[in-house]
Formats: sequence, C-alpha cells, structure tokens
Amino acid sequence: MKFNIPADVPAKKVATYKKNLKEATNNSNRLMLFAGDQKVEHLNNDFYGKGIAKDDSNPEHLFKIASQAKIGVFATQFGLISRYARDYKNIPYLVKLNSKTNLVPYDAQDPYSEAWFSVDDVVDFAKESGLDIKGVGYTVYLGGKYEHSMLKEAAQIVHQAHKNGLLAVLWIYPKGRFVKNEHDRHLIAGAAGVGACLGADFIKLKVPFDKNGNLDVKGLQEVTLAAGRSGVLCEGGAKVDEKAFLEELYAQIHKGGSRGNGTGRNIHQRDLKEAVNLANAIYAITCENATVKEALKLLK
Amino acid sequence: MKFNIPADVPAKKVATYKKNLKEATNNSNRLMLFAGDQKVEHLNNDFYGKGIAKDDSNPEHLFKIASQAKIGVFATQFGLISRYARDYKNIPYLVKLNSKTNLVPYDAQDPYSEAWFSVDDVVDFAKESGLDIKGVGYTVYLGGKYEHSMLKEAAQIVHQAHKNGLLAVLWIYPKGRFVKNEHDRHLIAGAAGVGACLGADFIKLKVPFDKNGNLDVKGLQEVTLAAGRSGVLCEGGAKVDEKAFLEELYAQIHKGGSRGNGTGRNIHQRDLKEAVNLANAIYAITCENATVKEALKLLK
Amino acid sequence: MKFNIPADVPAKKVATYKKNLKEATNNSNRLMLFAGDQKVEHLNNDFYGKGIAKDDSNPEHLFKIASQAKIGVFATQFGLISRYARDYKNIPYLVKLNSKTNLVPYDAQDPYSEAWFSVDDVVDFAKESGLDIKGVGYTVYLGGKYEHSMLKEAAQIVHQAHKNGLLAVLWIYPKGRFVKNEHDRHLIAGAAGVGACLGADFIKLKVPFDKNGNLDVKGLQEVTLAAGRSGVLCEGGAKVDEKAFLEELYAQIHKGGSRGNGTGRNIHQRDLKEAVNLANAIYAITCENATVKEALKLLK
Amino acid sequence: MKFNIPADVPAKKVATYKKNLKEATNNSNRLMLFAGDQKVEHLNNDFYGKGIAKDDSNPEHLFKIASQAKIGVFATQFGLISRYARDYKNIPYLVKLNSKTNLVPYDAQDPYSEAWFSVDDVVDFAKESGLDIKGVGYTVYLGGKYEHSMLKEAAQIVHQAHKNGLLAVLWIYPKGRFVKNEHDRHLIAGAAGVGACLGADFIKLKVPFDKNGNLDVKGLQEVTLAAGRSGVLCEGGAKVDEKAFLEELYAQIHKGGSRGNGTGRNIHQRDLKEAVNLANAIYAITCENATVKEALKLLK
Amino acid sequence: MKFNIPADVPAKKVATYKKNLKEATNNSNRLMLFAGDQKVEHLNNDFYGKGIAKDDSNPEHLFKIASQAKIGVFATQFGLISRYARDYKNIPYLVKLNSKTNLVPYDAQDPYSEAWFSVDDVVDFAKESGLDIKGVGYTVYLGGKYEHSMLKEAAQIVHQAHKNGLLAVLWIYPKGRFVKNEHDRHLIAGAAGVGACLGADFIKLKVPFDKNGNLDVKGLQEVTLAAGRSGVLCEGGAKVDEKAFLEELYAQIHKGGSRGNGTGRNIHQRDLKEAVNLANAIYAITCENATVKEALKLLK
Repeated sequence: MKFNIPADVPAKKVATYKKNLKEATNNSNRLMLFAGDQKVEHLNNDFYGKGIAKDDSNPEHLFKIASQAKIGVFATQFGLISRYARDYKNIPYLVKLNSKTNLVPYDAQDPYSEAWFSVDDVVDFAKESGLDIKGVGYTVYLGGKYEHSMLKEAAQIVHQAHKNGLLAVLWIYPKGRFVKNEHDRHLIAGAAGVGACLGADFIKLKVPFDKNGNLDVKGLQEVTLAAGRSGVLCEGGAKVDEKAFLEELYAQIHKGGSRGNGTGRNIHQRDLKEAVNLANAIYAITCENATVKEALKLLK
Repeated sequence: MKFNIPADVPAKKVATYKKNLKEATNNSNRLMLFAGDQKVEHLNNDFYGKGIAKDDSNPEHLFKIASQAKIGVFATQFGLISRYARDYKNIPYLVKLNSKTNLVPYDAQDPYSEAWFSVDDVVDFAKESGLDIKGVGYTVYLGGKYEHSMLKEAAQIVHQAHKNGLLAVLWIYPKGRFVKNEHDRHLIAGAAGVGACLGADFIKLKVPFDKNGNLDVKGLQEVTLAAGRSGVLCEGGAKVDEKAFLEELYAQIHKGGSRGNGTGRNIHQRDLKEAVNLANAIYAITCENATVKEALKLLK
Repeated sequence: MKFNIPADVPAKKVATYKKNLKEATNNSNRLMLFAGDQKVEHLNNDFYGKGIAKDDSNPEHLFKIASQAKIGVFATQFGLISRYARDYKNIPYLVKLNSKTNLVPYDAQDPYSEAWFSVDDVVDFAKESGLDIKGVGYTVYLGGKYEHSMLKEAAQIVHQAHKNGLLAVLWIYPKGRFVKNEHDRHLIAGAAGVGACLGADFIKLKVPFDKNGNLDVKGLQEVTLAAGRSGVLCEGGAKVDEKAFLEELYAQIHKGGSRGNGTGRNIHQRDLKEAVNLANAIYAITCENATVKEALKLLK
Repeated sequence: MKFNIPADVPAKKVATYKKNLKEATNNSNRLMLFAGDQKVEHLNNDFYGKGIAKDDSNPEHLFKIASQAKIGVFATQFGLISRYARDYKNIPYLVKLNSKTNLVPYDAQDPYSEAWFSVDDVVDFAKESGLDIKGVGYTVYLGGKYEHSMLKEAAQIVHQAHKNGLLAVLWIYPKGRFVKNEHDRHLIAGAAGVGACLGADFIKLKVPFDKNGNLDVKGLQEVTLAAGRSGVLCEGGAKVDEKAFLEELYAQIHKGGSRGNGTGRNIHQRDLKEAVNLANAIYAITCENATVKEALKLLK
Repeated sequence: MKFNIPADVPAKKVATYKKNLKEATNNSNRLMLFAGDQKVEHLNNDFYGKGIAKDDSNPEHLFKIASQAKIGVFATQFGLISRYARDYKNIPYLVKLNSKTNLVPYDAQDPYSEAWFSVDDVVDFAKESGLDIKGVGYTVYLGGKYEHSMLKEAAQIVHQAHKNGLLAVLWIYPKGRFVKNEHDRHLIAGAAGVGACLGADFIKLKVPFDKNGNLDVKGLQEVTLAAGRSGVLCEGGAKVDEKAFLEELYAQIHKGGSRGNGTGRNIHQRDLKEAVNLANAIYAITCENATVKEALKLLK
C-alpha cells in the first residue's frame, strides 16, 4: 500500500503522519470513524428516547464502545475527551474542533460553527496528557454567509494538522436556500472537490441517492473521483438494519470508491455489546477486507 | 470520594485543581454557588424594591453574606470583587467572566455576552492580590446568532481554567424564537450534554418542571445523566419560602442526581442575618449531607 | 479620609494610585471633572452659536480654562491633548478614550464607540511627554447591539488603568428603543450597579428627575447606594443659571450622596473669566467643602 | 514661523517631524497636497473621457507632474507608489492608507474603508526604499455604521505617524442619510473639530458654500477656528477655470484662515505642461506667499 | 527587456523577484497563467458532464497538464497542491489564496472570500517542500459590503509577496446590484486602475466586449493603459474553438496591449494530449512571440 503524504507535512513529521495514517486505517488506507459529536449537534435527541438503548443516556457509553471495539478513530469534542480520557487511554482519538446545536433550522439562519480549539491546543494537550490523538476534524457548511470564514478556518486546520503529522478530516455540507437536494451526486461531488482543494485527508460527505433513495453507485464514483487523493467517508446516518447497513457499506467501498465511513448513531444507540459487535463488523469491512458474510458473523 | 480530574489539567496543576475542588465542595463533590452577578444581569431590580431587605441596596451586602456564611464559592464580576476584596479576603471567589443587562428582551435580540477578562487576567489577579479565587464562570446562550462565538469562548475558558488548576462553571441557557419552553427536560438535558462536551466542571441549568410547574424528578435524572461527569447545579430562582426551597434542593440532589445549586436572590434579598442562615442551611444540605430537618434548624 | 484601593491595583502601583486619587480630589474623595469631549460628541454645536461666548469657538479656550481654574481633571481626547499640551503642562488630564458624533439619532442606530487608544498607549504617552495624566475615561451605552463589546472594553480599561495606578471614570448611559425615560431613578441605579461591577472609580450618570424635572433626591440615594464604592458623578448638562446650578450640585453631594460632577458646556460656553470663576465655584463645593454661599462669592 | 509640535511626537523624533513639516510646507506652515488617489475612489472616470487630456489615461502622468512641479506632497496609494517610485525618487510622497470605490452610492450603503497598511509598514518601506515619505493620509466618514471603527483607526494612525515623526493628514466627510448638505459650514466645522480631537496635522474638508454655491468666507472662518491647531485643507474639486480657482484659493487662505489645499483632478486632467504650471501656481499662492497675479504669470 | 521592479521589493529580494518574473514569463514580461481553481469556484461543473473529457473528472488531470505542457504558472489552491506536489515537482506554482463556491448567486449575497493562507505560510511551505512557487493570487470583488476588507487583504498580500520576491496576481471583478455590464470597458478600466493602486504585478480581468459580444480592442487599450505598469491578463472563459481562441489572444496582446492570459476550462476540459497541445499554443503566442499560424501548428 502506497500512502499519499501531503507536501505540507514537513520532513521531520512524515514518520508521525505515516504512523497515524497506517494505525488509523489498519494499513488499509481506509478509515472507520466512530462519530460521537452528536451531544452538541443533536442535543439529547440521539441519546435518549424510543428505540435508543438505555446505555446511551450516559456519555460514558461512547467511551466504553470506543475502548472495547475495533475502530479507526473516535471523533468527539475536546471537553468530553478531557473528562473521560484518564480512564480510557487506549482509544485512538480524533478531536472534532467545531460543533453547533440544532436549535435553529438551516432555513432560518445560515449555519456557522467556529473551531473551539486550535490545532496547537490539541498538540499540546496530546503531549501533556499522553493520549493517542491521531487527528482533528472540522465541519464546513458551504453556501451561506459564513462560507468564507469556514473555508479559511478549514484550510488552516488541515495545514496545521499536517505540520504536526496529524490527520485532518473535514465534514463538508452544502446548506442554505439555494441547496435543493442534499443527496444530489453532482452537488456532493462539488463538496468533495472543495475538500480536495482544502487538502483534507478524509472528507465526510452525504451519500448520493438515486430517485428511490438508494445508493447511487455511479454518483458515488463521480464523488470519489472529484475528491482526488482525499478519501471519501460516507455518512452513517440514522439507525437502520445491520445487514442492510453492512451491504451498503461494502458497495460504497468496493463499487463507489469510498475510503471509509463515519458512523455514530447506528452504533451507539445500541446497548454496549451490540454496539461493540456492529463497530467490529464495520471495521472488518472497512479495514480488514472482510466480506459482508464474514462481517455478519461478528454480530453473532 | 473519588474526584474526576479532567485530562487537560496538566500534571503540575493536578494538586491545585484537586484542592480547589475539594475545598469548594467540602469534599462532597457538590457545589453551593452563591450567585451575585445580578447587578448587571437584572440591573437594580433584584436589589431594591418591595419585598427586598434594605441591606441589599448596597453591594457590600453580598460580600458580608459571602464572608459570614458557609458557601462553596461566591460568583460575581471581577470589578466588583476588586473594589471590596481587600476587606473580604476570606471569601472563596469565582469570577463570573461575562454578563449582560436585561434592557433588551430575548425575543427582540439574540442574547450575547463576551468574556470581560481572560483566564490569564484572573490568574494574574489572584497571584498579585493573594485572593482565594477557586474558579471562573461563563454564561452560554444556545440557539442564537452568536452561539458559535459563545461555544468557542466557553470551550477555551474551561480549558484555560483547567490548565491553571481552576474550576470552570458554565451557565447554559437555550434561548431564542425556536425555544418554546425553557423548563422542558429534554431541552435542558441537551444543554447539559453541551456542557459536558465543553468539559465544564459544573453546569448551571434551568430546573425541569412538570406540567404543574413542580420539579420533574425523572426529567432531572435525564439531565444529570446527560451531563456525564460534569455536575449539574440547579438554578435557585426568585425568592420563595425557605422550607419549600430546602425540600426541593434535597430532592434535586438525592433523587435527581444534581450536584449542587446556584442561588442568589433567594439569599441576598433577605437581611444579613436571615441571608447568612439560609446560606448555611443550603450549604448543609449540599455539602454536609444534612437532612432538610437538620438544615431547617439552622434558620432558628 | 480613608481611600478605597481596588484589589487589582498591584502593590507597586498603590502609591501612584493613591497620589492620583488624592490629587484629583483634593483629598476629598470627590471629583470635579471638567468635561471637554464635546467637539466629537456634539460637533460644533456646543462651541459656536447663540448664547455661546466667542472664546469658545477656538478649542484652545478649553485648555486656558483648565489651566487657570481649579479643577480635578480635564477630560478630553488624546489627539486634542497632544496638539496643545506642550503649552499647557500644568493641567491634570484625563484621557477620554472613546467618542462618537451625534450625526445619527439614537433611535436610528444603536450607539457604539470603541476606544481609540489602549491604556498602554496612554501610559507610554504620559511617560514620554511628562504630562500629568491622572486617568482615563470611557463611555458605555447599555441596551443595544454593541453592549457586549462595550462592557468588555470598559472592564478591560478599568483593570488596565488600575494596573498602572491610574483612575478610571466610566460614563454609563442606557440607550435604545427599550429605554423610555433616561432620567428614571431605577434605571440610573441599574447603570450605577453596572459601573460598580466594572470596577470603576467614578461613574458619570444622568441625574434622576422627579415628575417636574427636578432633582429626585431619594432617587439619587438609590443610585449612589447601588454604585457601592464607585463614586457617582452627576452630569452637568446644558448651560443654566449659576446659582441654581451650584445649589443643585450641593444637594447632589450632601443629600444624594454623589461624589462629584462632570461639567463641560456650563463652564466653557462662558468667556474665559466667567468660565474660570464658575469652575472654581464648582471645585469649592465639590472638593473644598464650601457652602453654596461661599462658592457664589467666587463668581464675584 | 513657530511650528506646533504635537506632544505625542517623542523627543527623538521632533527633528524629523519638524523637517517633514518645514519641507512639505516650504516653511510656510501651509500645505499644497497634490491628490492622486482617484483611480480607486472614482475608478477611471477622472482619467479618461471628454475634457480630460490624453496624458491622464496612464497613471505615470501623476508621477511626471509630481516630479516636475513644485508640490508639498503627492498623495496616492502605496501600491501605485511602489510600481513607479524607483524612477521617481525626487517626489515627496504621502501614502494614502485607505480608499474605496464609488460603485455603491452613499445612500445605498454606509461608506467604509479600512487602512490597507499600518504606519509601521510605511516606515519600513521608506527605510528600505530610501523614498522621501513625509506622511500618511486617511479618510474618515462620519455618521454611518462604521464611524466607530474609522475614528479609532484614524486616531491610531495619527498617533503612530507622530511617533515616527511623520505628518498625518485626515480627509473627513460626514455622510449618510442624516447629512442633508455637505457644504453646510456648521457641519464642516464639526468635522474640523473631530479632526482636531484626532490630533491631525492637516484636515482635508469640503468647502462651505453660501446659498449661491460660492465660497462662504465667514463659514470657513468658523471651520478653521474649530480646527484649532490642525490646518484646514480645502478640497480642490472638479476641473474649473484656472483664474477662478486661484482667486478662491487665495481667499480661502487669506480670508478664511485655511492652511492649504488638496487638489487632484483640476491638475492632472490637463496635459503635462499645463498641469505642471497650474501646480506651480497653486504652490506659489499656498507656500510662497504669491498674489493671484503673480501666480497667474506662472501659467504663461 | 526591462523589467519593472516594484519599490517594495527589498534589495536582498530583487534577484529572486527578477528570477521569478523572468522564468514565469520566459523573459517576455507576459504571463501564461493556467488557471485551476475552479473546483471550488464552480464545484464540479467544470470537471464532469457533457462536452468535458473524462480525464477531467480527476483533479490529477490538472497536474498532468501543468507538468507536461509549457506554462507560465499553474494557479490553484494550497491544499490541492499539497496533495499532489510530491509527484509533480517540476511545475511552476502560483498559490491562489482565496476562493468561494458558486452556490449563492451574486445578486442574493455580496461575494466575499478571505485568504485561506498568509504569504508567510506560502513562503514557509515553499522552503520546507522545495517546490517552485513563483507567486500568489487573490480575487477582489469590488462594489459590495466586503470591498473594504478585500482591498485591504489584497494590498497586504501584494506587499508581502514583494517582500519575499514573489509575484502577485490579482483577479479583480466589480460585482453587485450597481454593476450593470461586467464587460463594459470603462468599468474594467476602473478595475485595472484599482489593481495598479494595489501594486499588482498582473491583474486578471474580464475582457471588454463591443455590442456584439466581440473583443473591444479600443476598450482593451483603455484598460491596459489604466493598469499602468501592472500587466493585464485576459480571462480565458468557457471552452471555445481553438483557432478563434488563439486569434483573439493574439489581438489582445498585440493590439490591446494585454500582457497575457489566464485560461483554465478551455484547456483542462480536453483530454490530456489536446490540453497539453493547446496550452503549448497559448504559451507560444504569449511568451514565445509566435504568430497564430505558428501556434496552430502545435495543435497538429
């Protein structure tokens, strides 16, 4: 496997960058990102209510899963990490640098979210705490009043991450009154291209759907081509049937050219055992070249 | 009692952080916060008028109470502290870093309040003055145009506090035209989760009410679970009957899982003696494991 | 006379602060502030026209008065000071750090005015020029879109002034569409409390009026109590009869508890001799314990 | 001639400041400012079209005039200077720090223009390039949403200029929907007073007109008095008859008390020879005490 | 060929600046800029769809062209460069510092785009990576709410580029509701003059059209004169017939006085071989003094 090292990773940090990329991807160059930033993004909606396991009402659930399952990185906020990490030192973390709540609908106000921390804050934190922080994440909303500010911040974050040998993952979502269909392949391909121009290592995107709401494989090919050397992570979305989920994941990677998956709710809304098993199955397909059949076995 | 030390408290500041937490909570891990920031937040409304003791018209009243009663911390603005503190050196202070007036209603303008001072200003002030400053406080309004800025500032303040071994208390209030009921348990649980992701040591929140306006115990359980390892402080609110107040406080802690209370008006609108007694009773329940009956005795 | 030294004046600057406070108040702890910032605030309206002495059309008039009369401090802008001060080295200056014009009415746009200079700029200027700069001034407008920014800047300016042993005077005015009556005692008391929380040494405020537009003595007591250890300076207002002015000044201090007066137009709209005499009379009542009768003698 | 040295010119820079002032004014304390910032302010309108000499279509025309004529300073943008100055080293430059285009009318959007460079940038540039840069210029628009920001920037620029021994010229224009008549004497006198409070060495202003659109001499006296020790430069305006122009210039100085003139279009819209002659005539009246008759001779 | 060295290129960087200018222009003082910033500016529209070669769906296509063809500079975003440059070290790069998407139409929101990186970031990157970075680019939109900010940033970028011996290219486009015709010669001449005042080395502009939408040669002369010593680059526009394109390019240079061309889509929407050939033909006319006939031979 030949890994793409961005030219803005300085010589003395190439080894660190490679190590982070290899470990996070199990040498597969594909990333299984366990997304746990929803306590800000969706408030308590994803953690409490009908169809959600009781375990999920306590944020420690996320750390237990991330600690016991095979994952690439566990993405969550700095502050939450800092409250649990002394007891969960074995987790590979990715610090999600910005977040916003869902209190205001997108059509009432252009979404905007600044980074809460600089990459330097994260680097200092990793050094002082000894935690295994493999990268940083940042969400960009395209198409609104604050696009200029988010593009600038994203570009700087990717570059600062690279200067420190860290991975940079961007969540990129076109939003606002001129965006008619978030699952349009051409629009998502545009977002992928923006991620490439920002130099992201991985880009978390909406999945292109066909008219029936199913995976649009050709569309995903347009998207993953447009992303160039940045890897496309398909959004996991709300909780669905495990088999359907794993089959789509397999198709995304092997037909659509995606390089991984960012899944949160689908994992953590289950009780600890189920959540760990599903995470392991996702990991097997993404980073261990498992077939769907092999992965399903891990669910027992 | 095992105390949770955030991972962003550096090794050389762990002892300071522990000392601040233990002293502020009387080793109970629960905080009695005497809130005295209303001279900005509510102008002179809380200090002068019908039903308010004359003592309260002079801001020194707050310092007398904080000095003579048992409290966890006295939270007020830097400038007010600086005018009185040479004469009130025994008070454990918490510097409230931001404040706004109530001149403009929340529905006419999204609330916004920047920190007046950095944590470094506070640390330098404590060192120079020799005052016992145990932490800092900051209010976050979720759901408005300035949410992005307040989330970032809150995250930085919590982290800077921890880097200096100080406690960080966040007041978190969802506001704006999309917030229908500030006492909704699910909304407050969302705010609690945000506080957890910001890494707060304590989060001051509205209290969840049932349809009759009474404490919603199950709701408070959702809230305190969502807060994870950050302690929930229930808002004290306007002046009410002492017995009712203490009974609710007891239920909040022992049934709802809260870890303290932030009370202002209910204390300082009484004359000095009454105010000191009530503060002591609140402290007894919160930090000395007293029953309501025991606490009531302190009121004489 | 015991002087209140704020806790944020560092040990090595306490002597400087005390010296500034004592000299500016003639050991009376009361301040006669000669206000000369109107060339920006009111453009040329206060300096040229009917009922205004010809002397006042040239800004040097202000410096002649400040140089020849007894005053506490002469408050004006940095730039104006810098053009005249080499010829007027004996004046005790207070640098007014912000100002705005009156071109836009308050109801058409929320008032906002940033500090033109930092306190460090002022300190460096004083050191380099050898001028006797005793303090800094700043206006805060409460209740508008920019309140958050002005509160923060005011808090920082007071603290930076104290760190350098300088006095800090705040002009505090609630403004905007939710302010119905600027002379309401309760509103002014609120502004006074804000000034106290900002740590101001002196707070220049509107004067509370009764229904007939006369001084509301009880109201002023509420205000001066709310200000705590910060001294209330009553606004001088437009040019009125000298005797009435001095009688009200006396009542403000001896009945209402104010600690001085900020007067501009009432002094400088007179010719040099009259202006100097009136300034001396105001000073006598404010800082030399004169009766109105004694003060009137100074007008000859 | 006694020159007014601002108190914020530090001792070690007094000689530099005096030299700049004396050279720029030919020891007359009056300034002939050749204004060449219109390529941004008016786009190509002032340089190409009917009634404009062909020479003016190339920006080098400005440098040829400034190099061959007697002038006080040539005011234009940093970038334009940097493209020509290696070939025009004999010109006394004044760097105009801000500029805006005329694409949006003043009544559609409050005018705003930030400084493109700091005074330090200019000082470093002068040192590195060896150019004769005598000062800096900045435009302030009063009365709009951005007044606060422009006043602050202007105040800082004047002070930074003085700290480096440079001259500071402010262009001050009240604008916006509350300004009814830009040629009103009282309004212009207000702007002059603002310039004085900002500490400007010279203030470029509109000229007060009487009802018939002629120079209002008494009005100009109000203006020049209000400006105190800051010199008033009358705006040159659009191209008019040379004799009328020189007669008005003479009256502005000798009757109205102005201390110079800022002229651009009236000079550079002529061919090189005419332009140089007119510039020399303006200079003669302004800085060489010439009569109109003497000046007219220079036009040949 | 005499090259114009801006006065803000410091002595120790003159050789670097000259080398960059000579190499980028093949000693012709004219620039062939291969524009590859459309993945942000136009999302995936320019790279995928009818009439676009399949090669173009992958961003590596741009690097292959830039590597195999003769070009002056390849202009694209920092992040995209960083992902490919280790494999494309022979390309002369120009880092396009800002970009925005086309999601929001110009009439719905004034366009705004901040620089993602400082010139210092670029200089450090060039040093660390050893890449051949010859300059930086930046787009300015005139006439909107953010004009002030973009003018300032552009001025700083040009100056910082010169301080480091780099070339600075500005894209300047008047936009907004007061701009009626983007191809109006007088408006474009205005934009050219703004570029000159910003000190740009080259200015990429719209091409002036006559009533029939053809090149307005006289208009282009007005434009190139207004630009002074800054070179005008004509925009390449959408894909058209090769011969027509080359003939117009020749006329722009030899009749209109332009100093080059910025072309993207017209090149990269072809397959690799065609794209390389067309780029070579454009280069021949621009930088090798070829006739149209000679250039057409390169297309085979």
